[in-house]
Amino acid sequence: MTFSEEQFIRWITAQPAGPAPAGSAPPAPLPVGPGDDAAWLADGTILCVDTVVEGVHFSAGTDPDAIARKALGACLSDVCAMGAVAETVLVAAQLPQGCDGRALAMGLARWARAFSVHLAGGDTVSSGSGVLALSVTASGHLPTGCSPWLRSGAKVGDQLVVSGPLGGSRAARHLQLRPRADLVATLRTSDVPVHAAMDLSDGLAIDLPRLLAASAVGAAVSGAQVPIHSDVPLGGDRLQAALCDGEDFELLLALDRSCPPPPGTTIIGQVTESGLTLTGSDGAPRPWPSQGFTHAF
Amino acid sequence: MTFSEEQFIRWITAQPAGPAPAGSAPPAPLPVGPGDDAAWLADGTILCVDTVVEGVHFSAGTDPDAIARKALGACLSDVCAMGAVAETVLVAAQLPQGCDGRALAMGLARWARAFSVHLAGGDTVSSGSGVLALSVTASGHLPTGCSPWLRSGAKVGDQLVVSGPLGGSRAARHLQLRPRADLVATLRTSDVPVHAAMDLSDGLAIDLPRLLAASAVGAAVSGAQVPIHSDVPLGGDRLQAALCDGEDFELLLALDRSCPPPPGTTIIGQVTESGLTLTGSDGAPRPWPSQGFTHAF
Repeated sequence: MTFSEEQFIRWITAQPAGPAPAGSAPPAPLPVGPGDDAAWLADGTILCVDTVVEGVHFSAGTDPDAIARKALGACLSDVCAMGAVAETVLVAAQLPQGCDGRALAMGLARWARAFSVHLAGGDTVSSGSGVLALSVTASGHLPTGCSPWLRSGAKVGDQLVVSGPLGGSRAARHLQLRPRADLVATLRTSDVPVHAAMDLSDGLAIDLPRLLAASAVGAAVSGAQVPIHSDVPLGGDRLQAALCDGEDFELLLALDRSCPPPPGTTIIGQVTESGLTLTGSDGAPRPWPSQGFTHAF
Repeated sequence: MTFSEEQFIRWITAQPAGPAPAGSAPPAPLPVGPGDDAAWLADGTILCVDTVVEGVHFSAGTDPDAIARKALGACLSDVCAMGAVAETVLVAAQLPQGCDGRALAMGLARWARAFSVHLAGGDTVSSGSGVLALSVTASGHLPTGCSPWLRSGAKVGDQLVVSGPLGGSRAARHLQLRPRADLVATLRTSDVPVHAAMDLSDGLAIDLPRLLAASAVGAAVSGAQVPIHSDVPLGGDRLQAALCDGEDFELLLALDRSCPPPPGTTIIGQVTESGLTLTGSDGAPRPWPSQGFTHAF
């Protein structure tokens, strides 16, 4: 049977906790476990992992420096989605025969520096398949006194905001991603209450329903307000591309309606009681697209 | 060119730290970075990652429950090697088409419970190759007031100790691994000073030289004292098998010579100024085997 990423996560989270084995003290409860962009551990650590695989997240023959940037950036984007600051990354590399490991290592060191995190180690194994894959773990913390931004905190009446233009990323931009740590810093030092957040990796068409489901709310999105990236070709259904292309690595935020959103971000709609409506650029209702990128097994 | 795991790690660690990008505060220094079994972060967290790949670490068709156990156990073994207690794991899964993700998810939940850690989340992507791979991240802490056990702390005169019998693990035992958290607890509550430690994953023949190089010392190992597992077939060079088979997931420790090692552990030799000598079971010198398992790319 085919098996989606969502189903896999539901299966994992549905397993009963069960009694701890005799003789071992159970670990302290987990404030935020599976299902959000990152976990929030009892000691305050924000922890997440993200994998990029050749043929899925980048093409064979991609410049190792660009692969390193994408692998680190995609994981650090998850830390940003929690409103946290990343400090450390580990890299688990599956290297095929003949892979230029040195160029990759140099790229990882270079981009760890550029993203202001320590590259604290990792694990290197031979790929069983000839396919390069990198799993990046990021660890970080919340600013002092702050709570994490969760997917589950959106409230009716919130402004739905995206941090940048969407669509067309797969042509090239996905390899030049920059996690939105700048926006996290702006929001954390401003008075704008962030009720919910996630990063846009699979496309707004798929990611927004995830945030709405976690918050048990609905939304009304105005297609005319959705910022469309100049990477989306002119002609054709550009709104559809912006919603469905994926790999944007911008933040989706539910902000209290009392405050204007920060410069450079765009209000695309409001949080409602239930349902999900979309109007096209002409103002006419159109169905919410069911497309986007989802892993299936 | 072929490229070993050691070379890859050397390349990563050799990259200059360089100046932090303008405007970003550099993270606090890293007490223990790449090159040991786990990293030790500025906030006290012990953090590591370990990957198992189908066709490299387990065969196609292996029971998903056993794969889950090995993936978690191998990573938690690295936490044990630091003398730390694991609390949380994340799992990055690369699942091929048709993989029974539910059985794997149940196995991960079951073994996380059995090993007394929270399964705090992870990432699930389609495998680019039809090969199943799991990267497990473990996070934990040192007992209050304790320092981590590093590979680099062995001192001349230390007793070299292994925590259990070696060899023959690849036949079946590698899928039933149990990280030696029991021994960590025993040692942490005893008065035995542990100067250095690592876990034995690639075989003593390869792993001991890693510890010696990190500590800038040598060793004299008595083959007659090396405990050989009953999984090593009778006949043939059983000592060679014990040193070279790998996948033992026992601990190698350098203990202060003033204290007897804990029950169930075995002294196999002493730390010396330099060099690495081995005597066979007949007491005659024999060369240190250069075999063992190493990933090459």
